Amino acid sequence: MQNLNRQVLLRNRPRGEPRPADFELVETPVPAPGQGEVLCRTIYLSLDPYMRGRMEEGRSYTGGMNPALGTVMVGGTVSEVVASSNPAFPEGALVLGANGWQAYARSSGAGLRTLDPRVAPISTALGVLGMPGLTAYVGLLDLGRPRPGETVVVSAAAGAVGSVVGQLARLKGCRAVGVAGSEAKCAYVVEELGFDACVNYKTEPLEPALRKACPAGIDVYFDNVGGDVLAAALRLVNLRARIPLCGLISQYNATEPPAGPNLRPVLVNRVLIQGFIVADHLDRLGDFLRECTPWVREGRLRYREDVVAGLERAPEAFIGLLHGRNFGKLLVQVGEDPTRAATSTA
Amino acid sequence: MQNLNRQVLLRNRPRGEPRPADFELVETPVPAPGQGEVLCRTIYLSLDPYMRGRMEEGRSYTGGMNPALGTVMVGGTVSEVVASSNPAFPEGALVLGANGWQAYARSSGAGLRTLDPRVAPISTALGVLGMPGLTAYVGLLDLGRPRPGETVVVSAAAGAVGSVVGQLARLKGCRAVGVAGSEAKCAYVVEELGFDACVNYKTEPLEPALRKACPAGIDVYFDNVGGDVLAAALRLVNLRARIPLCGLISQYNATEPPAGPNLRPVLVNRVLIQGFIVADHLDRLGDFLRECTPWVREGRLRYREDVVAGLERAPEAFIGLLHGRNFGKLLVQVGEDPTRAATSTA
Repeated sequence: MQNLNRQVLLRNRPRGEPRPADFELVETPVPAPGQGEVLCRTIYLSLDPYMRGRMEEGRSYTGGMNPALGTVMVGGTVSEVVASSNPAFPEGALVLGANGWQAYARSSGAGLRTLDPRVAPISTALGVLGMPGLTAYVGLLDLGRPRPGETVVVSAAAGAVGSVVGQLARLKGCRAVGVAGSEAKCAYVVEELGFDACVNYKTEPLEPALRKACPAGIDVYFDNVGGDVLAAALRLVNLRARIPLCGLISQYNATEPPAGPNLRPVLVNRVLIQGFIVADHLDRLGDFLRECTPWVREGRLRYREDVVAGLERAPEAFIGLLHGRNFGKLLVQVGEDPTRAATSTA
Repeated sequence: MQNLNRQVLLRNRPRGEPRPADFELVETPVPAPGQGEVLCRTIYLSLDPYMRGRMEEGRSYTGGMNPALGTVMVGGTVSEVVASSNPAFPEGALVLGANGWQAYARSSGAGLRTLDPRVAPISTALGVLGMPGLTAYVGLLDLGRPRPGETVVVSAAAGAVGSVVGQLARLKGCRAVGVAGSEAKCAYVVEELGFDACVNYKTEPLEPALRKACPAGIDVYFDNVGGDVLAAALRLVNLRARIPLCGLISQYNATEPPAGPNLRPVLVNRVLIQGFIVADHLDRLGDFLRECTPWVREGRLRYREDVVAGLERAPEAFIGLLHGRNFGKLLVQVGEDPTRAATSTA
C-alpha cells in the first residue's frame, strides 16, 4: 500500500466551460479506517456528464448539496477493499461505491455493493451494467414504452447510455436510429452495436438525414443532448410519441439559458416529454441486472470503454467528455485491476 | 323560416394573421332535408382558437382533412331543429352539433346531441359544459393530477378553458393562480371565480409576479398559450410538476416556428409535459357532465359568455379571439334563442 492518497479537489466553480484550473490534485495521507469501516483502493473512477451539475453552487438535482469548494469531486468507483473491520466487506472484496476522484477512501460500508468478477468485468458496474445502463433501461422501457416495430432515436448514441438505449430498442423489436458526432462513432453504432442507422450531426444536415433514417417517423426519442437534435427530432415525431429527457449536454456549459425547441409538435401530436433521473428509479435495479446481465455475457448487449490511465488525467478527460471527445464509457484507471487478466473485456 | 341561408366560407388560407378578407359571407338557398334528415337553425356558433389551425392547408391534428377553400368554416353549434324526418330529433328539439359558420344546416342526425334547457342554459353546451369544459376537466384532472394543497397555474385564465381549470383546481383543494391579459380579467378571475391570485402578463414583469403568486412553486401548469408564460412557469416548477399542454395561442399566427422554452427545469425537476387534445378523451364526457353539471347549477362552477350578435361579425370576433379581445366564452348569436327568457344566464 502506498503511504499517500491522491485526491482531485473542486477548486473553483466554473462559469461556462470547466478548465483544468478548476480542479486541484493534492496528496494527503491515506485515511485509517475506524471500527466497522473499510479502506477502499480505487481501481476505476467513472466520469459522467452529470458531474458538471455537481460543480455548481447549491443543491444538486438529486436533492443533496453539491460539494463545497476544496472537497473531493464526487463520482462512482470500483474499488478493492484493502483493509477492513467490516465483515460484510472483507479484505480483497471488489466493491462498487461512490468514493469520488481519489485513490483511497474510507467507508462505513453504506452504499457499497460487492462485485463478482466471474459475472462480468468489474468495470461494467460503472457502465453497461451500472448507472448508465440502468438509466437507459428505465428511460427507454418504463418511460419510452417502445412497442415492436416502432422507431426509437437516441442521441449521444455511442455513449454509455445511448449505446444501451439503441441495443435495448433492437432487442425489443424496434428500429434503432442513433445520432453521434463522428464517422467512427456512427460506424461503431451501426456495425458493432447493430443499430439500423446513425446520423452524424456534425457533417450531415440534421433534419433531412434524420428524416431519411426514420421513414416512418419517430415514436420514441431518448434525448441526451437537447439543442438542435431535440428540435429536429420534434419535427419528426409521430402521434403520441414519447420523449424521455435524460440529459441536455449541449447546454451544460451555457452561461445563459438557451431557448428550447418549438413545442407545437408536442401539442399537435400529443407527445409526452418526461424529464427523469435514474436515482428516482433504483427500484428497477434488480430487474435491470436480471434482464441485462445475461445479454452482456452472451454478447447481445455490447459496450465499449474509453479508459484513461491515471487520476491526474481525470480533469482533462472530464472536460473532453462534455465535448464528446470520449468514445464509449469514460473511465479513469486509478489503480491496478487485479481481475483484468482473468476476465474478458469488450 | 327565412328563404335564404347565410354562410361564412373560407376564402383564403391566411399566412400569419387572419384578415377579414380571408372569409366571405354568402347567401345560398336553405337546404331541404332529405329522408331521415333534419334541418337545423343555428342559434349559437362557438368560436374557438383551434379554428386557426383548421384554416391551414392539409390535415388537421384531429386527423381529418381541413376544409377546402370555398367551403363553410367549421365550428360547434347549438341549433333548433326546424324540420325533421328523423324521429330521434323532432321539430323543436334543441341540439348540439358541429354545423359550422352558417344559419341553417342539413344533418343526418349523426353527431347531434339533444339539449335539455331545464338542466342548464343551452349555450353552456358550447362552453363550461361543452368542449372547453371537458378540455379543462381532462387536462387538469387526468393529466395534471392535482393533489390537495398543490399550486395550479393556468394561462388564458379568463377564457373558456382557463376559467374552468382554475375553479376545478379550487374545488379539488388546490391553490389556483391565473395569468390573464387585463386588469378586468384578473379581477373577474379572482373576485368572481375565486382564484387565489391572477397575474396580468401585460403590465407586470411575469416571472417575479408569478413567483410572488406561487410562494410554494408550481405543481401543475395548464398551458393554453406557450411563449413567455410557459417559459416563466418552467422556471418556477416544483419537483415532478405536470404540464398539460393544451394550446399555444401565442404562436398560432406565427409565420416561422418560434423557439420554445429552455427545458433544463424539465430535466432537473423530472417534469412531465403532455400535449393533448380533447378529442382523444371523449370517453370522459359522461363523468365530466355528471360531476360538473351540478356545480354549474349550484353556482360553484361559474362562467361568462361574450356573445357577439350576427353571423356577419364572426370573422372579426374570431380574429379578436386570437388576440384575447374576448372576455369569457366567445359565442356568435346567429339566430333567436327560444329558451333565453326561460333560463337564467351567468
